[in-house]
Amino acid sequence: MKKYIVKNIPRPSKDMLDAYRSLDVSTVYEAQEKTGLMLPYLRPISPGQKIVGPAVTVICPPEDNLMVHAAIEVCQPGDILVITTTTGNYIGGMIGELIVTALIKRGIQGVVIDSATRDVERLRELGFPVWTREIYSNGTFKRKGGWVNTPANCAGQIVRGGDLIMADEDGVVVVKTENLAATLESANKRMEKEAGVKEKIAAGILSMDFHDLRGILKEQDVVYVDNITDIKE
Amino acid sequence: MKKYIVKNIPRPSKDMLDAYRSLDVSTVYEAQEKTGLMLPYLRPISPGQKIVGPAVTVICPPEDNLMVHAAIEVCQPGDILVITTTTGNYIGGMIGELIVTALIKRGIQGVVIDSATRDVERLRELGFPVWTREIYSNGTFKRKGGWVNTPANCAGQIVRGGDLIMADEDGVVVVKTENLAATLESANKRMEKEAGVKEKIAAGILSMDFHDLRGILKEQDVVYVDNITDIKE
Amino acid sequence: MKKYIVKNIPRPSKDMLDAYRSLDVSTVYEAQEKTGLMLPYLRPISPGQKIVGPAVTVICPPEDNLMVHAAIEVCQPGDILVITTTTGNYIGGMIGELIVTALIKRGIQGVVIDSATRDVERLRELGFPVWTREIYSNGTFKRKGGWVNTPANCAGQIVRGGDLIMADEDGVVVVKTENLAATLESANKRMEKEAGVKEKIAAGILSMDFHDLRGILKEQDVVYVDNITDIKE
Amino acid sequence: MKKYIVKNIPRPSKDMLDAYRSLDVSTVYEAQEKTGLMLPYLRPISPGQKIVGPAVTVICPPEDNLMVHAAIEVCQPGDILVITTTTGNYIGGMIGELIVTALIKRGIQGVVIDSATRDVERLRELGFPVWTREIYSNGTFKRKGGWVNTPANCAGQIVRGGDLIMADEDGVVVVKTENLAATLESANKRMEKEAGVKEKIAAGILSMDFHDLRGILKEQDVVYVDNITDIKE
Amino acid sequence: MKKYIVKNIPRPSKDMLDAYRSLDVSTVYEAQEKTGLMLPYLRPISPGQKIVGPAVTVICPPEDNLMVHAAIEVCQPGDILVITTTTGNYIGGMIGELIVTALIKRGIQGVVIDSATRDVERLRELGFPVWTREIYSNGTFKRKGGWVNTPANCAGQIVRGGDLIMADEDGVVVVKTENLAATLESANKRMEKEAGVKEKIAAGILSMDFHDLRGILKEQDVVYVDNITDIKE
Amino acid sequence: MKKYIVKNIPRPSKDMLDAYRSLDVSTVYEAQEKTGLMLPYLRPISPGQKIVGPAVTVICPPEDNLMVHAAIEVCQPGDILVITTTTGNYIGGMIGELIVTALIKRGIQGVVIDSATRDVERLRELGFPVWTREIYSNGTFKRKGGWVNTPANCAGQIVRGGDLIMADEDGVVVVKTENLAATLESANKRMEKEAGVKEKIAAGILSMDFHDLRGILKEQDVVYVDNITDIKE
Repeated sequence: MKKYIVKNIPRPSKDMLDAYRSLDVSTVYEAQEKTGLMLPYLRPISPGQKIVGPAVTVICPPEDNLMVHAAIEVCQPGDILVITTTTGNYIGGMIGELIVTALIKRGIQGVVIDSATRDVERLRELGFPVWTREIYSNGTFKRKGGWVNTPANCAGQIVRGGDLIMADEDGVVVVKTENLAATLESANKRMEKEAGVKEKIAAGILSMDFHDLRGILKEQDVVYVDNITDIKE
Repeated sequence: MKKYIVKNIPRPSKDMLDAYRSLDVSTVYEAQEKTGLMLPYLRPISPGQKIVGPAVTVICPPEDNLMVHAAIEVCQPGDILVITTTTGNYIGGMIGELIVTALIKRGIQGVVIDSATRDVERLRELGFPVWTREIYSNGTFKRKGGWVNTPANCAGQIVRGGDLIMADEDGVVVVKTENLAATLESANKRMEKEAGVKEKIAAGILSMDFHDLRGILKEQDVVYVDNITDIKE
Repeated sequence: MKKYIVKNIPRPSKDMLDAYRSLDVSTVYEAQEKTGLMLPYLRPISPGQKIVGPAVTVICPPEDNLMVHAAIEVCQPGDILVITTTTGNYIGGMIGELIVTALIKRGIQGVVIDSATRDVERLRELGFPVWTREIYSNGTFKRKGGWVNTPANCAGQIVRGGDLIMADEDGVVVVKTENLAATLESANKRMEKEAGVKEKIAAGILSMDFHDLRGILKEQDVVYVDNITDIKE
Repeated sequence: MKKYIVKNIPRPSKDMLDAYRSLDVSTVYEAQEKTGLMLPYLRPISPGQKIVGPAVTVICPPEDNLMVHAAIEVCQPGDILVITTTTGNYIGGMIGELIVTALIKRGIQGVVIDSATRDVERLRELGFPVWTREIYSNGTFKRKGGWVNTPANCAGQIVRGGDLIMADEDGVVVVKTENLAATLESANKRMEKEAGVKEKIAAGILSMDFHDLRGILKEQDVVYVDNITDIKE
Repeated sequence: MKKYIVKNIPRPSKDMLDAYRSLDVSTVYEAQEKTGLMLPYLRPISPGQKIVGPAVTVICPPEDNLMVHAAIEVCQPGDILVITTTTGNYIGGMIGELIVTALIKRGIQGVVIDSATRDVERLRELGFPVWTREIYSNGTFKRKGGWVNTPANCAGQIVRGGDLIMADEDGVVVVKTENLAATLESANKRMEKEAGVKEKIAAGILSMDFHDLRGILKEQDVVYVDNITDIKE
Repeated sequence: MKKYIVKNIPRPSKDMLDAYRSLDVSTVYEAQEKTGLMLPYLRPISPGQKIVGPAVTVICPPEDNLMVHAAIEVCQPGDILVITTTTGNYIGGMIGELIVTALIKRGIQGVVIDSATRDVERLRELGFPVWTREIYSNGTFKRKGGWVNTPANCAGQIVRGGDLIMADEDGVVVVKTENLAATLESANKRMEKEAGVKEKIAAGILSMDFHDLRGILKEQDVVYVDNITDIKE
């Protein structure tokens, strides 16, 4: 069975990436019609970091990170490595200080890994952003082939080489290349709308009023009572 | 089926709340005869925070936070929102920056949520205390009715509107209104007793001695041997 | 059924402990031929801490920490308490501020506990290193016998009194007394080798080249293509 | 702190129970507006069983089933024991052959337990219906007080003495006393409607047509294409 | 954002499907070089069933099975529905008796669902094969668009419309269309080889001998000792 | 690092094994003072089976079952293989039809495996008893050394070669060689006592009475009230 390393991927333009940088994961996820959000077991190893960039996908067999080494060569500065495994449930320390030193040298922006990371204290010192499923010391071998930049399943979402990855404290979202423009537009509209909402809140207006929620409560058979003893059950 | 918003709840007195503020979750839990402790999956989003106040309970259907909006109106400064869902296992970002901004405006002290929270980095910047089951971006709608201040099941414990909530690094405990005085008294006694224990430890006395544990060891057939090879098996 | 407290254990020499102090958990685990690594659910309560020392093992029945009190007496300064339970799945706050104060007084270096810890905020203030399975307030009694310094099962690994424990941000590893010298030698070789690798990375050489991985890729049927559309499927 | 055994509970009428017997858990849950469904970790120990009856609630401290013994006395034939623990997460074999023999003698219909069950092979031979969180041998003591027939939290739902419990292969649902009539009516309407749907299916009509779903697809921007290659991305 | 229903998919030939029917999931997974195996949380609702056929993929938003209804129309007899959700972690009863009755009418062979199933007792009576993540009553709506026959992430594996699905007691495996022939050939070779191994076992020969494993033991520093006390540690 | 295969183990006598055969896991666990019970994630693959015999322990590296092959040779008829892994969390199909065929040929009674099993349908047909952590197809290699009959950690308990293993529907318990006689005696006493209890239950006497529990209730501040409204809160 042949495995593939795809050398070229369609990266989002610099302008598009810059435009996304002012957004956040939750907004982008909503703007993409609630699609693309990875499972919440992916957590950042350091607080307060955020990355935005094109995905270089890697699919490795369990206990083997040969393909991570192979992927470095096809990466460009600013890329984000999205590392997954063929079984989808292998928990092993597939990246550590050495790999990350090489990634930094290559200008890679960060890693999203649906497996484990090791040497985390050192990675924190290096300031390199990693979203990982677990922290675990069990290292890997470099013997088995896999795939680079073919569609990969990462934490419940399909990622293709060149899709946009955004990760922050809330988690990780993937935006498909073909959705980039529409999602950006929708996200910006959300941001504007939220700014308006914040003004109303600052003015002391209740969301019950500015969102007109009282009618919905009535339709939903929600009744106000003064005290718990007024509910006759 | 009617749903209810109970407007008034029996809040603990200011003196009672102040008295509890010098205690901590573990002590209160023990003092209430090991009852009222929520499951340990609730974790604070920021380190070093502690809240003590009356619960305003909210029960929402999955994917809907209409009732959180409704609850804000019946809250008083210092209240703690306890947010739960009808299914007891919905993991969604039911609160985020906008809701929290409104909660802060209203003087609400903090949130305990048996579901997920989003915009956590922003919430940390705002310094608003939240104990949550998970961090997850998936937002909600505002369409479905639920309950405010009726008995709610939060992380394995029943909470009623006005029950005292205390949350710190160790977790979250609920004290029933009718147990407030007795639990406080018992907690203070524990604190005094612990102060005595600390003095003995500081003086270099072993707990084996000041707790008189050697007799129990003997009764329990615990035998001292010099070396592992002395155990004849 | 007799239970035992073994008073004396074969501690590693000061030189051996010092030699291990410059290593880290991931390196030691690999050097011991990928054995001895505890399950990743054990996490430190404070960031950036590391401990290295001989294990004093404790096996307690659920809801009872009598044997932790008993173990303090047989500890020497620098020891590490490894606390486990007979059922292997009891989650309770078996140690808290009082116990830890006594451990500090005795010069004990840290705790690894395959159960829960409480008073964590206070323990952080005290700067005492603890690796724990969970944080939970539920306290224990002091009534039931168990074992000290007999082989104990902690987070998936067997630990004997006097085995070396190392814990850092990556997790916890146990090195058997009889493996100490060989593991140290192997670990130091790994460190040297890694230093060489870092130099090559710093010089901009790819791991694909200095590890000679291109041949393996070929043997594994990994093929380079220019674009995803070049894969004919 | 006083604990209570409530001797009398408001049981549903025989007619009401009979009327519910022809329904099933999923239908009742939907009919009660998607409330009352316990978490899916409760599973039956034997296939093909179903129980319907009033709840007698029991709240026990961990490792203690004294209150189960106390509850037997206040049970009437046909009752269903709903056993929970104060911590909400204790997994222990709180019921086994002896208790169940006593329950059968008393005419109790079945048990729903948010903890563990033991002697399961024997319970299967006895044909006694049990929905349990886990199967586990660890037995309990009979030393600590708790509550009978006060509101209890079982697998994510609040149950009060006398509420109707239904359990089948799909899980366990609780119907509040005050919702019994309305839920029954709504459930029967669902059953009729479903009968109509089955007829249409039997006649070979697609749900797309008899539910008029094609319009919704269009509104939702769902587009039909002949082949995957027709999607231009 | 447009969503798509792809009407036509490249189904495996009848001969190919027949050839696979004599194989089993574990053999096919190994033969496809250890790829395509879904996560083990998917379990059959009835014992002893096996299905082999082309996948029709469905991606639904949480709490909504509109697209399952839409998918029925594009299915052909013998197809297998592979149902997933946009978030990858929604647990709800997306299929039950009514849907399954319609699937049977349409000749659909079985369902693999990375969410929950309800009415399981009835489905067992109907003898319809379902592999599901959980059993849960919580029903869905029919209001939100999704995708049919686009690449879907099911239990950790990417499935495309027309890929071969095989499910038995061991789990579920997907074979990519382009791997069908090579995997079949490799699987048949494994079966032959295993037949040879069984003969040797039947003849009383040890695998240590017919697999020539003694040399590997030696290379791996595995030493035979007579008794545990012969290990000098 | 040397690894060991211990050829001889101290098996319990035939009389001892026969005496244990009339007991069950829950009774033996209690009789051994609540020690030796493995974690409840180990489940039988077939209903109604029970095994009692001496353990032959196997410790394998992840993804490798070489040592299972090696262990067969040192087994005697009636032995029970207890298979574990060095990491304690590897989930892979380490045994399947071929291995089990060889085990049956050798007269081995059953397997307890703290990892996964495959070919389960075939194993059920063969009637071979297996208690496993999971069912999973992912096969293993035969390349890496490990240990046979050295102390192994299986599902939370330490097992040594020759310790008695009992497994039934309730789970798996290990009895240490040195505890065999005392545990048997204690278990038989429990059985007699339980027989007496059953007689009392059959005679319609409440456990509240024959266990004298009413006094304990009073001491524990448990109060009888007629109705829930009698609790003044």
